[in-house]
Amino acid sequence: MFGREQAVVEAAVLEANAGFYAAFSAGDVVAMAKLWAEDVRITCLHPGSPLLVGRDAVLESWRVILREAPSSRLRCDHALVSLLGELAIVTGYEAAGEQPAHLAATNVFVNQQGAWRMVHHHAGPLSAPIRKPSAASRAN
Amino acid sequence: MFGREQAVVEAAVLEANAGFYAAFSAGDVVAMAKLWAEDVRITCLHPGSPLLVGRDAVLESWRVILREAPSSRLRCDHALVSLLGELAIVTGYEAAGEQPAHLAATNVFVNQQGAWRMVHHHAGPLSAPIRKPSAASRAN
Repeated sequence: MFGREQAVVEAAVLEANAGFYAAFSAGDVVAMAKLWAEDVRITCLHPGSPLLVGRDAVLESWRVILREAPSSRLRCDHALVSLLGELAIVTGYEAAGEQPAHLAATNVFVNQQGAWRMVHHHAGPLSAPIRKPSAASRAN
Repeated sequence: MFGREQAVVEAAVLEANAGFYAAFSAGDVVAMAKLWAEDVRITCLHPGSPLLVGRDAVLESWRVILREAPSSRLRCDHALVSLLGELAIVTGYEAAGEQPAHLAATNVFVNQQGAWRMVHHHAGPLSAPIRKPSAASRAN
């Protein structure tokens, strides 16, 4: 993949990743359901929790979590895309509002008919909070 | 992919995943270096720690961690493979010796010339320990 093409694909993955945090921040269960992949096994590790497997279990967990929209927007700082063909791994630090990040996240996306959709989410606590990057350096 | 072929591929991925925990348990830096992918960006989120990017940073972290071989073997309980073409996501619970699991793990592998090699590792604390499965139900 040439540099320009790769940048376009990475931007599309970052947009999908931002969509996940936007759905979370808005408490939007419908958007959350749409952004997860179909026809493949999806998996989710919420912070500290056992694994959830399959659309029913994963989307039910989001329905419960998003029953109340969070009081502040959830950010994903330092989002980094690693492209691997039709898959992409995004890593980042999750934070609420203007707070320092308190979770490390792994989000895996698969390209389905041109759309990047989530197949796996894993968020786990950071031992030490990571400060919000300055506006100039924010990846997302 | 047919059921039998899929089972063969999943077994190969589980073997690669077991190789990671064997290298960790043995404090084997050479084996650890070999099992990570080459010519693609590799990333690693050790429990609570910021992201490490690239072979130099990731392998240096393992050299430090494995300077002393752990006193007991590291297990990966309930290892589950999700195949996505040339990529595989393995989730599982990490535990030492006979202890209950204390970490949830995401391990991503890519097929490089027929060998499944790690491109991403993320381990994060579980809120509550998860008991060791009985011998009959152990996936790995």
